[in-house]
Amino acid sequence: MLLQLYRSVVVRLPQAIRVKSTPLRLCIQACSTNDSLEPQHPSLTFSDDNSRTRRWKVMGTLLGLGVVLVYHEHRCRASQESPRMYSKEDVRSHNNPKTGVWVTLGSEVFDVTKFVDLHPGGPLKLMLAAGGPLEPFWALYAVHNQPHVRELLAEYKIGELNPEDSMSPSMEASDPYADDPIRHPALRINSQRPFNAEPPPELLTEGYITPNPIFFTRNHLPVPNLDPHTYRLHVVGAPGGQSLSLSLDDLHKFPKHEVTVTLQCAGNRRSEMSKVKEVKGLEWRTGAISTARWAGARLCDVLAQAGHRLCDSEAHVCFEGLDSDPTGTAYGASIPLARAMDPEAEVLLAYEMNGQPLPRDHGFPVRVVVPGVVGARHVKWLGRVSVESEESYSHWQRRDYKGFSPSVDWDTVNFDLAPSIQELPIQSAITQPQDGAIVESGEVTIKGYAWSGGGRAVIRVDVSVDGGLTWQEAELEGEEQCPRKAWAWRIWQLKAQVPAEQKELNIICKAVDDSYNVQPDTVAPIWNLRGVLSNAWHRVHVQVVP
Amino acid sequence: MLLQLYRSVVVRLPQAIRVKSTPLRLCIQACSTNDSLEPQHPSLTFSDDNSRTRRWKVMGTLLGLGVVLVYHEHRCRASQESPRMYSKEDVRSHNNPKTGVWVTLGSEVFDVTKFVDLHPGGPLKLMLAAGGPLEPFWALYAVHNQPHVRELLAEYKIGELNPEDSMSPSMEASDPYADDPIRHPALRINSQRPFNAEPPPELLTEGYITPNPIFFTRNHLPVPNLDPHTYRLHVVGAPGGQSLSLSLDDLHKFPKHEVTVTLQCAGNRRSEMSKVKEVKGLEWRTGAISTARWAGARLCDVLAQAGHRLCDSEAHVCFEGLDSDPTGTAYGASIPLARAMDPEAEVLLAYEMNGQPLPRDHGFPVRVVVPGVVGARHVKWLGRVSVESEESYSHWQRRDYKGFSPSVDWDTVNFDLAPSIQELPIQSAITQPQDGAIVESGEVTIKGYAWSGGGRAVIRVDVSVDGGLTWQEAELEGEEQCPRKAWAWRIWQLKAQVPAEQKELNIICKAVDDSYNVQPDTVAPIWNLRGVLSNAWHRVHVQVVP
Repeated sequence: MLLQLYRSVVVRLPQAIRVKSTPLRLCIQACSTNDSLEPQHPSLTFSDDNSRTRRWKVMGTLLGLGVVLVYHEHRCRASQESPRMYSKEDVRSHNNPKTGVWVTLGSEVFDVTKFVDLHPGGPLKLMLAAGGPLEPFWALYAVHNQPHVRELLAEYKIGELNPEDSMSPSMEASDPYADDPIRHPALRINSQRPFNAEPPPELLTEGYITPNPIFFTRNHLPVPNLDPHTYRLHVVGAPGGQSLSLSLDDLHKFPKHEVTVTLQCAGNRRSEMSKVKEVKGLEWRTGAISTARWAGARLCDVLAQAGHRLCDSEAHVCFEGLDSDPTGTAYGASIPLARAMDPEAEVLLAYEMNGQPLPRDHGFPVRVVVPGVVGARHVKWLGRVSVESEESYSHWQRRDYKGFSPSVDWDTVNFDLAPSIQELPIQSAITQPQDGAIVESGEVTIKGYAWSGGGRAVIRVDVSVDGGLTWQEAELEGEEQCPRKAWAWRIWQLKAQVPAEQKELNIICKAVDDSYNVQPDTVAPIWNLRGVLSNAWHRVHVQVVP
Repeated sequence: MLLQLYRSVVVRLPQAIRVKSTPLRLCIQACSTNDSLEPQHPSLTFSDDNSRTRRWKVMGTLLGLGVVLVYHEHRCRASQESPRMYSKEDVRSHNNPKTGVWVTLGSEVFDVTKFVDLHPGGPLKLMLAAGGPLEPFWALYAVHNQPHVRELLAEYKIGELNPEDSMSPSMEASDPYADDPIRHPALRINSQRPFNAEPPPELLTEGYITPNPIFFTRNHLPVPNLDPHTYRLHVVGAPGGQSLSLSLDDLHKFPKHEVTVTLQCAGNRRSEMSKVKEVKGLEWRTGAISTARWAGARLCDVLAQAGHRLCDSEAHVCFEGLDSDPTGTAYGASIPLARAMDPEAEVLLAYEMNGQPLPRDHGFPVRVVVPGVVGARHVKWLGRVSVESEESYSHWQRRDYKGFSPSVDWDTVNFDLAPSIQELPIQSAITQPQDGAIVESGEVTIKGYAWSGGGRAVIRVDVSVDGGLTWQEAELEGEEQCPRKAWAWRIWQLKAQVPAEQKELNIICKAVDDSYNVQPDTVAPIWNLRGVLSNAWHRVHVQVVP
């Protein structure tokens, strides 16, 4: 059977390769969220990320085969209908199976309703683009940039976009967020102003590295639009040392250090907490976590140049962003000096993210990256670094991002009594299948992520499909983790056998780190008024069809 | 009322001080488990532990007042009965309220049945000595060594011990354990050969430091009887460096480093796990954890002298004990070289425990102390240290002290796939009241301990008296913890208000560390075939009487 499949594919491949391929780099730049940026280092483009490119090539080959399989079925239904003109609104209103599923590519409009279930990457992923342009998704998943895919798509063409609809609506100039960058349409927006959004679960664990355009975004203020040529980072010198004013070029003169780090917002999975009792905060689902390869100068090298030493081990390094509210108050946070000065802790002043200059949403031109530590300390658009005897006095260090007992409410809370969150606890979540999905009996693939703070490695993920009565160990994928420096997550997968008579599955995952810390069973006992640190077992309920 | 109390006490104090006090040091030495030992450093005696002595002085004063209050009631019932002779067996059979409660001091026998409820330290603590000698307990709690206490006791005298009963029964010479030291009678024995025992909950959290005689003991083999004069520690040199053969005097020449460290057995609270499903291992309750002030040479200093450097960060330091089984196999374990070489990790080759030479049961003359790490790596009676590219090949490193999924049984277990336990997860337990106890309504004092591995500080202990519906924060006592180096536990306490109509309490505790890791809700999902890492919420059920 497999051999037959292979033969039918190989035989038809030559017919499929007709349209000339568009270079990957162009597509990526077209959808870059880094819209204000002249690249500092043209040599660093998306296609230089070898490991990802290799993975995509493999994936491309596999998915390509699938595409070709369905190609034959559809090539007879040519787009003989006379081209019609549609507005963007027309397209947008066709975003589900009932209305029909339309998408655009350039100025062309396609009705892919009948193709959704045939999509080799799965219907869920195609539906992310329903009612809008394909480009942002094709840019993420290079497999699409092949002639046979374009030819296949041509079969579904139903018309063209009105010319006036190719312009983006302009924003109000008085809006402090008017200058925010354009974002990827796949992001699930939790707040538009300030912009806070997460990748959908279907894409979150698609690869080990999260592509920049769908990396979760947690902004507290409007995105500053900084000129890389005039940008300066102010580093306050130690007593007897000298203060530094570093240009981007100056930062590049420090030894370049690269590290793959998972960032997680303290509010990840808050939506589960707010089901227990109302909390204050954005309704993050499972996607306030992402992984990138960061590069920059090590903070310890920069601090050393400003004369700082680890003499007072209880001191703190305070960071200030160049984003600010109407009163001029900037975002700020701090980490202990001991972590900042430890070369093994690999704290970066990062200027690259996955081989590209930082996108504006992620701190262009420079942000802090603190491996193993809560996202809130990875200050973006970094303007100022100083060493202080106390933690940052910023609201976000002292009045937010702290955990409390479930019994504490807004009348009794004393923020001074709880330590600010630094290292995060063990965490895991299921990204596939999603809660409420319908799965077929037989082999069901369950997939997700697991990560722990403080460089603690994930050593095991237990998965249950019977609500916690029995457990199976998931397979851990992706890169091996370095002991004590396990800064990045593990993607995991389990293929569970589901008998045909089964009506439903209560799927649970729970992870263990190398300190043998585990996730708590339930949400209510870790509920806290800020809705942070939501790391109970993740549960999804799915229906099974024979 | 308080003033009246004070007056009645002060007025009667002079009458009470009649009998000459026995020096504390004598009592301690009388019950020392370090029976084979000529002290190496006579200047370090129990009474030099200033902080403890101070605490006892304060406690002594308070308890002393209580003793004097009851003194008056009993001084009229003088011991006029004619002295009778009793056997040790007679005394041993009077160990509960039904048979009467007898104790001995020296050769005298006392019937303290009526005093039990009047005991200022609480009836539970006096009952620990029921049917046996008082000396071991008085040695632990110096408050008793006061004239008025001895005079009070005299009132309860009922006779003398048979002279032949003052000898301890001798052990069989052929027994490999025949030479094991004499232990404190308060220890709850889980296994006699090898000796494994824990302090009772009533004593465990009596102080921040656990007195040596009741420090939990986890032996895997007979206790070696080592001559401190001929003892040598062999340290294998690095390639190019030189191997060392260190006498105790040599070890003392390294800078002396002191640190307060909590040790916990991986099997602590295993008895709760075995209630879920049978496990292999000793039935530890909540007492396989204790805290001492350790002093010795830093392992990093000794390794450096043998030429070792942190070049291969994945190497391991292997330890071998001088205890061995009949085949000559010694106890062994290892820790990562990175931890061993980190001065901040404070790994010790310890020769002192709470200001005394190590007791034999705790590794005399030298043991390893690895702050924040599972007890199994703190190798006792240390004979050999080497740096290897692999973990120790010892059974206890490779085939024990590892965690597994609840689904893994003895047919499916693969020990090679799980990492050996090093840092332990967050832990806490209730020591007062105990499960099944009867408490009076009104203010109920709930007490326990909390600790986390890896130097992570305990930041909060939540206590529930309603089975987890609502939570109150306990008060953390004892010394503040140093960030990143919180090697010792916190004792905690909560005074809960219990209404008279309440019939029972379901008390739960759960702790949080500074990585915001929490304990799991229940035991079953962390059950594992070895019964290790039992750190679910601790629960006790008590009855309430009005």
